[in-house]
Amino acid sequence: MINKLMNKIQKTNAPIVVGLDPMLSYVPSHIQQKAFAEYGETLEGAAEAIWQFNKEIIDKTYDLIPAVKPQIAMYEQFGIEGLKAYQKTVDYCKSKDLVVIGDIKRGDIGSTSAAYAVGHLGKVQVGSKSYAGFDEDFATVNPYLGSDGVKPFVDVCKEEKKGLFILVKTSNPSSGEFQDQLVDGRPLYELVGEKVAQWGEEHMGDSYSYIGAVVGATYPEQGKVLRKIMPKAFILVPGYGAQGGKGKDLVHFFHKDGLGAIVNSSRGIIAAYKQEAYAKFGEENFGDASRAAVEAMIADIRSALAGN
Amino acid sequence: MINKLMNKIQKTNAPIVVGLDPMLSYVPSHIQQKAFAEYGETLEGAAEAIWQFNKEIIDKTYDLIPAVKPQIAMYEQFGIEGLKAYQKTVDYCKSKDLVVIGDIKRGDIGSTSAAYAVGHLGKVQVGSKSYAGFDEDFATVNPYLGSDGVKPFVDVCKEEKKGLFILVKTSNPSSGEFQDQLVDGRPLYELVGEKVAQWGEEHMGDSYSYIGAVVGATYPEQGKVLRKIMPKAFILVPGYGAQGGKGKDLVHFFHKDGLGAIVNSSRGIIAAYKQEAYAKFGEENFGDASRAAVEAMIADIRSALAGN
Repeated sequence: MINKLMNKIQKTNAPIVVGLDPMLSYVPSHIQQKAFAEYGETLEGAAEAIWQFNKEIIDKTYDLIPAVKPQIAMYEQFGIEGLKAYQKTVDYCKSKDLVVIGDIKRGDIGSTSAAYAVGHLGKVQVGSKSYAGFDEDFATVNPYLGSDGVKPFVDVCKEEKKGLFILVKTSNPSSGEFQDQLVDGRPLYELVGEKVAQWGEEHMGDSYSYIGAVVGATYPEQGKVLRKIMPKAFILVPGYGAQGGKGKDLVHFFHKDGLGAIVNSSRGIIAAYKQEAYAKFGEENFGDASRAAVEAMIADIRSALAGN
Repeated sequence: MINKLMNKIQKTNAPIVVGLDPMLSYVPSHIQQKAFAEYGETLEGAAEAIWQFNKEIIDKTYDLIPAVKPQIAMYEQFGIEGLKAYQKTVDYCKSKDLVVIGDIKRGDIGSTSAAYAVGHLGKVQVGSKSYAGFDEDFATVNPYLGSDGVKPFVDVCKEEKKGLFILVKTSNPSSGEFQDQLVDGRPLYELVGEKVAQWGEEHMGDSYSYIGAVVGATYPEQGKVLRKIMPKAFILVPGYGAQGGKGKDLVHFFHKDGLGAIVNSSRGIIAAYKQEAYAKFGEENFGDASRAAVEAMIADIRSALAGN
């Protein structure tokens, strides 16, 4: 799957991922109204609204991009009905040949991590049969519990040729509270980065490992160091756009050949129609606004990488 | 809710929680066969089997215990159908007046943590209405992303009078890989413990905070230190029984008055019928075996606390 991700990035010449993190407030009123007319102001209605919203954005952008990253929390907030919309979104993106990174940030001890891994990346045995639950291509994983929390994910990935992005240095303002604490003079995130490199050796694709890392665009200096510590890890970079990361900050996350990282934007793309720059499209044509925002993001990153 | 948990612990004189973490392999064959006869060897069949398994264990133990802790991963592995069984289990336990600790170990940045908090502990707005998604009483939270990942959970808890248990020192063998790293000569888990105490000040119950901590029974010495660092935090202690923690190890997690902690056992209770000590009950009567295992666990902990 890491090879597929690489190929798709090279084919689209776009190292970006669209974060499908729909808040109900992002969904234009005509879509909400239609969903509520059919299902009422219910969890089912909300789920239908975010699914229709996603579908339009996918239809308008899938040919430009290699991958999507649905954030499961935004679906889970609507309970079972929301999670059905998550599953529909994953399946639909895969039918469009997009690589799907499930932003699930799970992590637990041994057998429990194994259950998450099976549910999201593998197959669960039921009597004589086996089934894939959510079936994403990649998943994000929280490393706080250490190796025996991460290993079960790696094992399932090996079997299924799928991959992980492990949280190393997250994009949020207080990520430093624990991640930046100095251990023998070096921040904790560097230790986690070393572990990611080590876990990744066990499961290599052609040029990159199946085990990647999450490093926030909002911390470019740390990205520079981590790029060196984890030379074979693909870096998933959140925090571009709405969170403040800019194209020029991103060059450090890439290798000199312009590969090795993929940059996520969520709000900046899916709610583009709400920004002044894209207001001309109007709420009805929110999908076209998203497409224009994707094109602008690709241009920004290409130009930053060209100037590197 | 922390007051309710306290009251229930005092009423039952049993500071224990039963971990409802069903593996399909724990479910006796007569239950599996019945579920598969109705739904086939499908995800729905698996979900029905674990739900019927849970129900019997709850029916046979609810009068002895204050709380349950369903581990969502064990349900999530069966996709949407499994999560429906999780929801049914949560609802059923609440109908039996048990305090429900959702072992979800979620954690993300600001708005995403808010979505998890709303989905598990609060209510989500849909048009003019609001709905509870999973509606547990407490949830476990991963602190790796720092304060701005935890605060949204605290905010929802304040509104809903619900609570959290934050991972401080987990019970698994490799928990020390990051959690034990020394920061200025002190292990990281102590820093996390200090933050838990600080976050907890914002949301106090009568004698304990709504913001508790997870500290593994397998690390009693660390428990002793953390008990002092977080005097007002209730400590949820996993790792008793199957993972190796014993009654005598547990005294350090409690205050001198025998309060302030709640000990979890999962496999040791729900799969008790598979142990030699309870084999006499037979597979058919697995619920009675679980009841006997609960009684033995309560006796073990009472005797350890009495000798303290």
